[in-house]
Amino acid sequence: MGKFDMLITGIGRMVTPPGNSPRFGAEMKEVREIVDAAVAIRDGRIALFGAEQDVRGALAGADIVQSLDVGGRMVTPGLVDPHTHLVHGGSREHELALKRAGVPYLDILAQGGGILSTVKRTRAASEEALYEKARRSLSEMLLNGVTTVEAKSGYGLALEDELKQLRVAKRLNETHPIDIVSTFMGAHAVPPEFKGRSDAFVELIVTEMLPRVAQEGLAEFCDVFCEQGVFSIEQSREILLAGKRCGLRPKIHADEIVPLGGAELSAEVGAISAEHLLAATDDGLAALAARGVVPVLLPGTSFNLGLSRHARARDMIDKYALPVALSTDYNPGSCPTESIQLIIMLASLNLKMTPEEILTACTLNAANALDRGADIGSIEIGKRADLTVFNAPNLAYLPYHFGVNHTYGVIKNGHVAVWDRKEVGAGV
Amino acid sequence: MGKFDMLITGIGRMVTPPGNSPRFGAEMKEVREIVDAAVAIRDGRIALFGAEQDVRGALAGADIVQSLDVGGRMVTPGLVDPHTHLVHGGSREHELALKRAGVPYLDILAQGGGILSTVKRTRAASEEALYEKARRSLSEMLLNGVTTVEAKSGYGLALEDELKQLRVAKRLNETHPIDIVSTFMGAHAVPPEFKGRSDAFVELIVTEMLPRVAQEGLAEFCDVFCEQGVFSIEQSREILLAGKRCGLRPKIHADEIVPLGGAELSAEVGAISAEHLLAATDDGLAALAARGVVPVLLPGTSFNLGLSRHARARDMIDKYALPVALSTDYNPGSCPTESIQLIIMLASLNLKMTPEEILTACTLNAANALDRGADIGSIEIGKRADLTVFNAPNLAYLPYHFGVNHTYGVIKNGHVAVWDRKEVGAGV
Ligand SMILES: [Zn+2]
Ligand SMILES: [Zn+2]
Repeated sequence: MGKFDMLITGIGRMVTPPGNSPRFGAEMKEVREIVDAAVAIRDGRIALFGAEQDVRGALAGADIVQSLDVGGRMVTPGLVDPHTHLVHGGSREHELALKRAGVPYLDILAQGGGILSTVKRTRAASEEALYEKARRSLSEMLLNGVTTVEAKSGYGLALEDELKQLRVAKRLNETHPIDIVSTFMGAHAVPPEFKGRSDAFVELIVTEMLPRVAQEGLAEFCDVFCEQGVFSIEQSREILLAGKRCGLRPKIHADEIVPLGGAELSAEVGAISAEHLLAATDDGLAALAARGVVPVLLPGTSFNLGLSRHARARDMIDKYALPVALSTDYNPGSCPTESIQLIIMLASLNLKMTPEEILTACTLNAANALDRGADIGSIEIGKRADLTVFNAPNLAYLPYHFGVNHTYGVIKNGHVAVWDRKEVGAGV
Repeated sequence: MGKFDMLITGIGRMVTPPGNSPRFGAEMKEVREIVDAAVAIRDGRIALFGAEQDVRGALAGADIVQSLDVGGRMVTPGLVDPHTHLVHGGSREHELALKRAGVPYLDILAQGGGILSTVKRTRAASEEALYEKARRSLSEMLLNGVTTVEAKSGYGLALEDELKQLRVAKRLNETHPIDIVSTFMGAHAVPPEFKGRSDAFVELIVTEMLPRVAQEGLAEFCDVFCEQGVFSIEQSREILLAGKRCGLRPKIHADEIVPLGGAELSAEVGAISAEHLLAATDDGLAALAARGVVPVLLPGTSFNLGLSRHARARDMIDKYALPVALSTDYNPGSCPTESIQLIIMLASLNLKMTPEEILTACTLNAANALDRGADIGSIEIGKRADLTVFNAPNLAYLPYHFGVNHTYGVIKNGHVAVWDRKEVGAGV
C-alpha cells in the first residue's frame, strides 16, 4: 500500500456531489452520503475514501504519517466561491443611509458614488495596503470553509491600477492557503475620465488592457458589467470576444437590474458562466441551457439591497435543468460579506433551494463555473484534498442554524489550514 | 488616586448612549462619542472614562494593575440580548423544508411540531446535556460581543421540567462570564397532555408552577405567549397578574401574528417589556408609550420566517417615542441564531433604524427591558465594566459589513473574557 500523508477518520457524515461534471437541474439534489466515513490523502490529493471500516481495511499495513479524528462531525468538499471582488481599497459604510432610504444603485453611481468611490480608494492604495486588506478577507473566507475563490479586478479602471489589483491576487494565491482564480474585469464601470465616452474606454480595454493582462498571465477569465447605464450588449460583446482572442474565457454580469439580454449574450459568446440574472427572461434562461453556461446566483446582493425580487433558482433547476452555482459576490458596495454560510442560508430562504442543491451549488457547480471541475468541488480519488469539517450533524443544519460560523476545520491541498475554528499557519 | 485594576487605552472611538434611563424615540440617536478614549476600571466597575489624555492626566501616579491597548478599535458598552430561549434540547432542522414551503407556524404547531417537538427533546434531556448545549450558545453570544442575556424557560411545560431549565440557566449564570437574567415562561405553549384543556394548564401554572419558581428564586420575570391558538388575552392576564403577586414582573410575547391586543395588555398589567409586536395596532403602540413599556423587536424572526412584514420600528421611534430594544430571540424554531450582529444588520435593512439607534437598542434600552438600566447598558462611572471591542472604525460599519463577526475583545465585569476573537478563560 505504501505511504499516506494523512488519514481522516471519525467523519460522522461525508456528503459530496459525485463526479467532475456540472450537475444539471434535478441532478443537483443527488448527493453521495457516507455515514462513518474516512478519507486517505497522498501528495495533497484524495487517495481513498469510503466507509471508515473499508478504508481502514484497505490501508492495513500502510505507513500513515498523520491521523486526524474529526469527532463525528460532517465533512464536505472545500467550498468554492466563484464570484468575488476580493481586492479593493476602502469601505463604503458612509453610503448605508442612502441605500437604506432606497436610493437606486444606478443613481448612486451616476452621482459618482458606488463603484467610483471604491475606484478612487483603490487607485490611491498601495499594493501592500490592498494585499493586507484582501488577506484579511481571504482568512475570513477560509474560516468559513472556503478553499478556492475567484477574484475580479475592476476597481482600477486604468491599466496600471488594474494590473496592481491582479498582481495582489496573484501574490495572495502564492502566499495564502486559499487558491485564487483571477478574472480581469476592466469593464466594471466607466471611469470618471471617460465619462460620456464609454466607447473610447472600451477601446482602451480591447487594445491595451486585455493584451497586457494576457501577456503577463494575470487572469484566466474576462468579465463585463453588462447593464443599462454601464456597458451595452454591443460593448460587452466586443470586450468578451477580444478577451477570447487573448485566451481569456468570458464571464458576464448579466441581467442584474434590467433584462438587456446579457444571458443570451453569454450563450452567444460561449461564456463559462453568467452572474446575477435576477431580471433574465425565459429566452435568456433557455439560451444558457442550450449552451451549458453556469448561472452563478448571488442571493446576498439582492438581500442586502433589500429587493423583493430574487433570482429564479427554482425555474433554473426545475424548468431549465441549469447547473446553478452560488457565490458571495463579496464586494464593498452591494454585498460586503465574506460569509458563504450566510449565502447558504439565503439560498434556502429566498431562492428556495434544498440543502443538497445548495451544497452542489457551492462545490462542484461552482468549481465548474471556474473550469476546475476536474480538480476540485467533489470528494473523488485524484482530486485535490480540499475538505471542510462542519460542526453540524447534517446538511440541513447549515441553513437552519444561521448567522454563525459552523466551520470546525479546513483541509487545503491535504494540509490542515483551520482547526478548532482557528487558522493554523501556512498549510500551503 | 489609589489603585486601578485595569486601564484600557488606544480606543479609536468610544460610543455609548448616556445615562441609565431608557432612551425614548429621538433620544435613541443621541449617542456620546469620544475619539481617542480611555477607560479605567476598579472592582469590576467603570471608575473613569474620557479622552485618553485626560484620563492619563487624572491617573498620574496611580497604581495600575493591568494596561490594555485596543489598537485604535471601537469600544461600546457590552451588548445586552434581552429575549432568548437559551436553554432547550435538540434542534429542528427537519422542519426547514416545511417552513420554506411557507406552511404557517400555527399549522406546524397544531400538528405537534414546532415548540412541542422541542418540548419533547427538552423533557428527555438531562440537566447536564441542556447545560452543555446552552453553554456553547452562550459562548457564541459572548464572541458576538454580548455580556448580558435574558433566558426564558418554556420548553418543559411541566413543573419539574420548567425547574430543570431554570436551574440550568442559574448554573450557567454562576459559571459563564455572561450574566443571565431568568424569565419563567411556562405559558409558552399548551403541552400535549393538556390539549383542548388550556384553562386547566393555566391553573397549573398559576397554582403550582409560579409559586414554586418564586419560592426557589429561579426567575425575575414572567412571560406569556399571548397569541391566537396559544394563550388568550384573558389567560395571559391571569398568568401575568399571578406572576406579579409572586414578585415576578410581567413580559409578554404580544401581537406577533394576530393583533389580539397583547400590547394593550402589557400596558394594563405594567409589563416591563412587550416582544415581537409585528401586528400591534396604533392603539397598542400608544398604550405602550403611555405606560413606558419597552418594545423588544426581533427582526431575526421575521427574516427567518420569510415575512414581508416587519415590526414598525420607525413609527415606534418617530411617532410614539418608544424606547425600542433589539434582541436575537434565539430559539430552535423561528430564529435559530445567536448572532446579535446579524440582528444589527437586519435592524438596519428591514426596520430602517440608524446605527446610533441600533446601538442604543442593543445596550441601554435592552438593559432597561431587563430592569438593569442602573447597572449595565452604557459607559458611565459606577456601572459594570462590560465593554465590547469591535474591529470596526465606526458604528455604521457594523450593519454595513455583514455576516461576519466584528468582535475583537470583550471585557466582562472588568475582566478580559474575549481577546483577539477567542475566549480567554473564566473571566468571571
Ligand atoms: Zn460582481
Ligand atoms: Zn420569544
